[in-house]
Amino acid sequence: MKFYDCKTAPSPRRVRIFIAEKGMDIETVQVDLGGGEQFGEAFRKINADCVVPALELDDGTCISEVLAICSYLEELHPEPNLMGTNAAERASVLMWNTKIEQQGFMAIADAFRNVAERLKNRAVTGPESYAQIPELAERGRKRAEQFFQRLDGQLANRAFVAGDSYSIADISALVVTDFATRVKISRPDDAENLQRWYESVAGRPSASA
Amino acid sequence: MKFYDCKTAPSPRRVRIFIAEKGMDIETVQVDLGGGEQFGEAFRKINADCVVPALELDDGTCISEVLAICSYLEELHPEPNLMGTNAAERASVLMWNTKIEQQGFMAIADAFRNVAERLKNRAVTGPESYAQIPELAERGRKRAEQFFQRLDGQLANRAFVAGDSYSIADISALVVTDFATRVKISRPDDAENLQRWYESVAGRPSASA
Repeated sequence: MKFYDCKTAPSPRRVRIFIAEKGMDIETVQVDLGGGEQFGEAFRKINADCVVPALELDDGTCISEVLAICSYLEELHPEPNLMGTNAAERASVLMWNTKIEQQGFMAIADAFRNVAERLKNRAVTGPESYAQIPELAERGRKRAEQFFQRLDGQLANRAFVAGDSYSIADISALVVTDFATRVKISRPDDAENLQRWYESVAGRPSASA
Repeated sequence: MKFYDCKTAPSPRRVRIFIAEKGMDIETVQVDLGGGEQFGEAFRKINADCVVPALELDDGTCISEVLAICSYLEELHPEPNLMGTNAAERASVLMWNTKIEQQGFMAIADAFRNVAERLKNRAVTGPESYAQIPELAERGRKRAEQFFQRLDGQLANRAFVAGDSYSIADISALVVTDFATRVKISRPDDAENLQRWYESVAGRPSASA
């Protein structure tokens, strides 16, 4: 197996933390996103969508998309469990992972990609060019703030995002929270549950991945 | 179990088709999205995100998000298999289901929600109000066209989206294709693989769900 990564990007970090929690050792290749390596012929053969993370299996098959990669690794290496131990838990993990992606991650990506100077015609990931829409960046910031309020509410009576155990939903939420900080979207001041949870998950050794 | 549905909306249709393929019989409640029932106090207690589909379990737990609901139903009722029969197949199904959601469904939703007269301050699903961004509707149309080109390429050597078997990825792709037609985004004329696949999946009895 070969893991295509980029040390500075948030999406592959979700997989890096997942791998670290599993204690797995997977050959890792850095893709230079800043230098445009993802658009070169060599990487297009690995993932025509021109994004990382991607996991190349020994038979040459390529799996992209964080959830698909992590689900595959969970089956290969079930312990420690990161995706729920019964049907209801697994549903809660998938539900929260989706909410975090769609309400959190995508909102922050909108806020970032639609204004960053170096992404002028790269407002959407992938091989095509799209002009930035500043109004969408503004919408993304508002949506991200509302997402953090909601996440704070979810964490009021729970140690972790999807229930009593640490899961991929916590990994996704941690990466989204750090991504927001980088884009200068701050967490609401009164989000005490979120703060308590953040200190706990950011303090795990895997968080440095 | 109780399934919260809306007969006219594309997201819950993905679950309806999934249930029909499984041959399951689940108590179904129609939520009047046009009349704003999703914003009322009663439905907010079921799903604070104010969206369908949602699945209420007998213990009162609510599962939202299509993938979470379908994964739960797949565990409860494994046959016919709709999510892959081994780790690599399951990864391919999840990967394609994600691509279809993010590159297809969301692009078409952007194209639709940012111009529809009756969604003036409802450009994003959920409890908050967001003004429409016409530029984003235009971007959505372009992204949707590119998505269909890509899907046509994927279907060149395969009977179904994620491999040799019909799966949730085909359900998602069918619903996205019909959603595009409704929003007047047409499939590329030369997309013969897509057309062959469409006739096959749209011809299944479940497609009328």
